[in-house]
Amino acid sequence: MPVVSRGRECSIANALAVIGERWTLLALREIMLGQRRFDQIARGTGASRDILTARLRKLVDSGVLERRQYESHPPRYEYVPTEAGQALQPVLLALTEWGDHYVTDGPPPTVWEHDCGAELHPRTVCAHCQQPVAPGTARAVRVGTVR
Amino acid sequence: MPVVSRGRECSIANALAVIGERWTLLALREIMLGQRRFDQIARGTGASRDILTARLRKLVDSGVLERRQYESHPPRYEYVPTEAGQALQPVLLALTEWGDHYVTDGPPPTVWEHDCGAELHPRTVCAHCQQPVAPGTARAVRVGTVR
Repeated sequence: MPVVSRGRECSIANALAVIGERWTLLALREIMLGQRRFDQIARGTGASRDILTARLRKLVDSGVLERRQYESHPPRYEYVPTEAGQALQPVLLALTEWGDHYVTDGPPPTVWEHDCGAELHPRTVCAHCQQPVAPGTARAVRVGTVR
Repeated sequence: MPVVSRGRECSIANALAVIGERWTLLALREIMLGQRRFDQIARGTGASRDILTARLRKLVDSGVLERRQYESHPPRYEYVPTEAGQALQPVLLALTEWGDHYVTDGPPPTVWEHDCGAELHPRTVCAHCQQPVAPGTARAVRVGTVR
């Protein structure tokens, strides 16, 4: 997907061009929670139907979601994450963890349990050495040019 | 920070109320890359000065950045991440990794190296068992209510 914008050439900017809109991310959250029908996603996000229709269409066009018919009379569809959609899980979990710690007052509204049985708290590690990626343990060795 | 919005009570929505705006995330990216002065951040993001001023002020007010004077004649300031700001690293790395794989055409514009010497590719693991959090390995055991 070619992306053109001002500023530094950067995959964060490119990612945000596809998913960096509030209702888009909230729709993806609902889908991650298992809500896959338009009415469920509309209710869970609180988005207007027009906005949600546009956001879901963009996610389908971008290859993040697949629109699948689950009923033929009348035709009804559900939204299923593609591989690219499933690969957004780390983004959504990182946002959840940060929001739980630094923004939400009181206990976390949503709690995930990992396969191991523990309450899920995501940690970011280096795929090579499996050690934590803490602030100050990584440095940029190539940086996108500024246009 | 109390947050009020429609839809499901959720720390993703709460996080996005603080950092979920394109120029905000791009400003945080520049700061993660070590660009801490207003003019550097403006150039790296491509944001207008008015928008950037508003976004940086909000991040300072929200406790994500600290505005620090580094010169007194004339007064000049730089923006330094607080603990909450540093804790956004997993969000930015996850967005980078996803953008590199699914949006950017060609090689990643920005490459990070981990302390271990390898090119950094972040992976999300469970803090308890250290095993990967792959799609399908976690389930929501509590879900925020829909308002």
